[in-house]
Amino acid sequence: MIRGFGSDNFSGVLPEIFQALEEASYGHQHSYGEDVYTAKAIQDFKALFGEEVEVFFVYNGTGANVLSLSAFLRPYQAIICAETAHINVDECGAIEKQSGSKLLTVPTFDGKLNIGLIENHMHGFGDPHHAQPRVISITECTELGTVYTPEELKTICDYAHAHGMIVHMDGARLSNAVAYLGCSPRALTAEAGIDVLSFGGTKNGMMFGEAVVFFNTSPLAEVPYIRKQAMQLHSKSRFIAVQFSTVLKDGLWLKAAAHANRMAQMLAGEAAKIPGVRITQEVQGNEIFAIIPREKIQALQEKCFFYVWDESASEVRWVCSFDTTESDIIEFVNILREELC
Amino acid sequence: MIRGFGSDNFSGVLPEIFQALEEASYGHQHSYGEDVYTAKAIQDFKALFGEEVEVFFVYNGTGANVLSLSAFLRPYQAIICAETAHINVDECGAIEKQSGSKLLTVPTFDGKLNIGLIENHMHGFGDPHHAQPRVISITECTELGTVYTPEELKTICDYAHAHGMIVHMDGARLSNAVAYLGCSPRALTAEAGIDVLSFGGTKNGMMFGEAVVFFNTSPLAEVPYIRKQAMQLHSKSRFIAVQFSTVLKDGLWLKAAAHANRMAQMLAGEAAKIPGVRITQEVQGNEIFAIIPREKIQALQEKCFFYVWDESASEVRWVCSFDTTESDIIEFVNILREELC
Amino acid sequence: MIRGFGSDNFSGVLPEIFQALEEASYGHQHSYGEDVYTAKAIQDFKALFGEEVEVFFVYNGTGANVLSLSAFLRPYQAIICAETAHINVDECGAIEKQSGSKLLTVPTFDGKLNIGLIENHMHGFGDPHHAQPRVISITECTELGTVYTPEELKTICDYAHAHGMIVHMDGARLSNAVAYLGCSPRALTAEAGIDVLSFGGTKNGMMFGEAVVFFNTSPLAEVPYIRKQAMQLHSKSRFIAVQFSTVLKDGLWLKAAAHANRMAQMLAGEAAKIPGVRITQEVQGNEIFAIIPREKIQALQEKCFFYVWDESASEVRWVCSFDTTESDIIEFVNILREELC
Amino acid sequence: MIRGFGSDNFSGVLPEIFQALEEASYGHQHSYGEDVYTAKAIQDFKALFGEEVEVFFVYNGTGANVLSLSAFLRPYQAIICAETAHINVDECGAIEKQSGSKLLTVPTFDGKLNIGLIENHMHGFGDPHHAQPRVISITECTELGTVYTPEELKTICDYAHAHGMIVHMDGARLSNAVAYLGCSPRALTAEAGIDVLSFGGTKNGMMFGEAVVFFNTSPLAEVPYIRKQAMQLHSKSRFIAVQFSTVLKDGLWLKAAAHANRMAQMLAGEAAKIPGVRITQEVQGNEIFAIIPREKIQALQEKCFFYVWDESASEVRWVCSFDTTESDIIEFVNILREELC
Repeated sequence: MIRGFGSDNFSGVLPEIFQALEEASYGHQHSYGEDVYTAKAIQDFKALFGEEVEVFFVYNGTGANVLSLSAFLRPYQAIICAETAHINVDECGAIEKQSGSKLLTVPTFDGKLNIGLIENHMHGFGDPHHAQPRVISITECTELGTVYTPEELKTICDYAHAHGMIVHMDGARLSNAVAYLGCSPRALTAEAGIDVLSFGGTKNGMMFGEAVVFFNTSPLAEVPYIRKQAMQLHSKSRFIAVQFSTVLKDGLWLKAAAHANRMAQMLAGEAAKIPGVRITQEVQGNEIFAIIPREKIQALQEKCFFYVWDESASEVRWVCSFDTTESDIIEFVNILREELC
Repeated sequence: MIRGFGSDNFSGVLPEIFQALEEASYGHQHSYGEDVYTAKAIQDFKALFGEEVEVFFVYNGTGANVLSLSAFLRPYQAIICAETAHINVDECGAIEKQSGSKLLTVPTFDGKLNIGLIENHMHGFGDPHHAQPRVISITECTELGTVYTPEELKTICDYAHAHGMIVHMDGARLSNAVAYLGCSPRALTAEAGIDVLSFGGTKNGMMFGEAVVFFNTSPLAEVPYIRKQAMQLHSKSRFIAVQFSTVLKDGLWLKAAAHANRMAQMLAGEAAKIPGVRITQEVQGNEIFAIIPREKIQALQEKCFFYVWDESASEVRWVCSFDTTESDIIEFVNILREELC
Repeated sequence: MIRGFGSDNFSGVLPEIFQALEEASYGHQHSYGEDVYTAKAIQDFKALFGEEVEVFFVYNGTGANVLSLSAFLRPYQAIICAETAHINVDECGAIEKQSGSKLLTVPTFDGKLNIGLIENHMHGFGDPHHAQPRVISITECTELGTVYTPEELKTICDYAHAHGMIVHMDGARLSNAVAYLGCSPRALTAEAGIDVLSFGGTKNGMMFGEAVVFFNTSPLAEVPYIRKQAMQLHSKSRFIAVQFSTVLKDGLWLKAAAHANRMAQMLAGEAAKIPGVRITQEVQGNEIFAIIPREKIQALQEKCFFYVWDESASEVRWVCSFDTTESDIIEFVNILREELC
Repeated sequence: MIRGFGSDNFSGVLPEIFQALEEASYGHQHSYGEDVYTAKAIQDFKALFGEEVEVFFVYNGTGANVLSLSAFLRPYQAIICAETAHINVDECGAIEKQSGSKLLTVPTFDGKLNIGLIENHMHGFGDPHHAQPRVISITECTELGTVYTPEELKTICDYAHAHGMIVHMDGARLSNAVAYLGCSPRALTAEAGIDVLSFGGTKNGMMFGEAVVFFNTSPLAEVPYIRKQAMQLHSKSRFIAVQFSTVLKDGLWLKAAAHANRMAQMLAGEAAKIPGVRITQEVQGNEIFAIIPREKIQALQEKCFFYVWDESASEVRWVCSFDTTESDIIEFVNILREELC
């Protein structure tokens, strides 16, 4: 059976990583981040995002989001996000449990917030009966495979800051956005005004590990404790760190993402030609959303796995990875054609 | 500089693991535990502990303890444990934050609970003003390197069950206890009456990952949600699972632990001969506690790192690992002799 | 200045209550609910709602909702409610903080849930990434002054139970609904299938105190601890209890509510005749929602206080209380006429 | 049956309060603290403790402690307190659940902390594995009826502040301490360096309500939200406020406490003369601790209720209230004599 399109976390690990892991295993290192690999990886992040950032490694995306948000939130404060946000629908209520905070959601067409949508929740400030909006959380690429431009991000950040709020970016697939836009990572983050970033590793070829990058370092003194209490401090920290150093070296993270994006473009282009397939969102990252005939879905999944996104609309999601190949695409398109035509 | 005795998590990774990780990376696998490697590792645990157990993989020891305890606790309930318990002193209050529960601690001489000590907190049942004792948490090996016998464990478990309570074992170093006692893993757990076990991986040669083993499966329906909300569900679950399958195969986990124990015996034996060194706890696992002259500590640490355990008593801790070598020991003993004699 | 229409908690206390409080003050009574007044008030509730119910007194409405919900919820579970629900907009995120649970909200026209609206959130069952819907919370009367009929409630309860869920009723103004419908309190609760009820006291003439009535007593063993840990157990419990016995005696609670409803009908009827006033919701309880000219609001508020409900729509809320008088209404209607005509 | 000595919350309400409550019931008042009675009561507190204080009314003692502590704590921080502290043994783990923080307890002889005892927990600063000591919580009068002098308090506060920590005073019985010492309330609080005070109302003759007095107002901006989210904001706030204004007027609170203290002195003096009674703590407030023959306890309790304090030591507690009379004492002493002699 060919590689499917279930998720980018169905993929394995970039080959470059195994050698780095093995080399890092030699000898003893202080644990809990006091090792030379962690120090180096932090420098690698500073080289990418700017000397002023502070970086903390965690285990997974939910952990990265919880650490990012908890650092800026008190339980009586709230987070404005899209209804489709991963923190809202895919983390089993981790944010509410961990930070005690309320999520204030808005429906969107394409997974992207804008000022008009945000304004639905910009009230009740100063009223103790009302959870106080404190964070705007955006996802880049969004959960619908779309991408905010630097300008769109800057508009949101400026608005947030003007209202005494901060902006969190869930960047589980930031690499795909950077690869799509062809801009610098700083342009999408520091320069746009992002305060804190969950920087994805696992979805882009790592074995485990994510990074939280603080551009706004005001909560710095609290972060080490929040991370430990949130069960996100790895004892053998070197093995997260060395993976990041490996993917950040020579732009490997962007090459991997660009490849996945290219595969998605190829698949979307071919699929769109097949009668009965309607692509529903602009394909900007490595995800494709498509409406296909309901009665064909199960047979297709059995030949090549993917998830149904919206049962009622018969909308499915196809995700490409760093290890998706052209022949995976060709074969899947053939399967699609056979089943649908 | 030689390998130090700071902690068993200062060590790297068992060589057998790298090959297994690389092989597991081939092809796509369903994520979040729906992969073949996770299924196999669960079977490996059942082979070790009994078909009736249920196993959940998590990232680290704090995560394992939180999942174990949260599964059985409501916030108004309490945990009885030794003052020295890892959950009490080394997890930054994670238990209180995550489960909302109170820890009821007792001082011990050797890190081991017994009925007499437990009874200090066995009151207030049925009184809504009083956090209700619900769990007895013991550590095997203890944080002081001592080991409960199967009989001691059974006595505690029988007592707990007779009082409607359950027993959690923090087994971050269970391998060292099994190796020391030469008994079966079941004898120390299922047969003693343990309800839930945090089974250590990282401290015994894995890169990351711990397992929670439920002997008492009454909270089973809730565990997957608790794990996810506690940020402990790894997307690429195969990479934790395959490590466990590797260490459980042909008793590798016990060989690694037995080696660490042997190194600890050797170090303790040699160190005890040096004037000015007093071993303070019986060495049963891979940890040695010793009082040494206060004014020598820093110089020693600079030559070979270890932690001070109790500043006021000038007591230090030396931990051996799977990768500690006889020459590490010899060299450290030489350093000790030079500094102290 | 006349009594305003800000809220029913702007009112004082029913005169009958003062004498009862003073009489209850004589002599010593066991504290924390072990007194004769609490025992009697519980019997009074059983007489009203059925012998099978269990009743717990708390301080306020938020406390009643938190106790009701926490008793049935684990942090990974979720509550489906209307966007306008008090628990969603007026309790500063207390539910999320206290129970750790997510609120799943739906927009409504009139504050009332129905099966169609609820179904928007009836998915993701069994998926550990998804907060599990466990409770449907409805408000009777709703926050928009509308009333569910017994049939509507029964439909929701049957649906919930068929899906393994339970139904919570926020009955801060249940008295107004019972008075409006002219049915028995049991018809709106036990007979409809409600599992747990926050029964309002303060908004209907008490000084302080609310009651949580469990029709579904499955979490009974946990409730005393949850109440205490939620800071809702009053030491001098007799002073909440005796107020409830007073208002439940001879239907005083319904007389007070019926009066408030009558005042609301009178005000709505008169106001509707005034050009520029548009009543936006059917007036079924003691609350009136009306759109009035934006530029007149402040001048009106200065003469007779009320709250703006929806700034953007220029919609205001007028609430009548047990102590609202016909002359209050007449005078306010005169003020309205003067300002608007 | 005579008034017992179970607790000062077994008592009723000071007669002066009923009239004040009834008068405050006239007319409408803004809710949630925006009323004239609340404003006046806050001024009354400022007159007592200093213009710089900020005051927030809550429902009960546990609520007052939670608000006091949550205002200064983040979940990774810890509270040092006596093992006997009410927050540790009598609040069902409310602090851990509400603030997420760990309690670090020390055994004491007389319920009083001192620097030596506190120092047991003054380590681990800066270590993310260790819950960070942030608050020292003392109780005045202590749970053992003893009283800290202003000098003792100042020593603790100076020590705390020198270590970047703050001091919370649980003053559920502060009135008894002030009455005993004959000093000003400021001498025991503001002048000693106390940062935040739970000021008791209910145990000293009020129907319900406690106050949190912030001398250190740094968390002021957060307190209204924390109070609301902690379910401690009363809608009809005037009815707590007017009680405080009543008891603070003309020193009524101190007269009531002085009376209770006097009754305790009388009871202790008489009881000490009876063979078989041994007073175990110095009687400085309104509580007496005594060892009496174990086999007599039940018969005594049936004639006049009191609590057993320490079952194993056969130690009981007798508490006097504002409404304890000399004849209550005489009668109880007679009963004691009859049973014990």
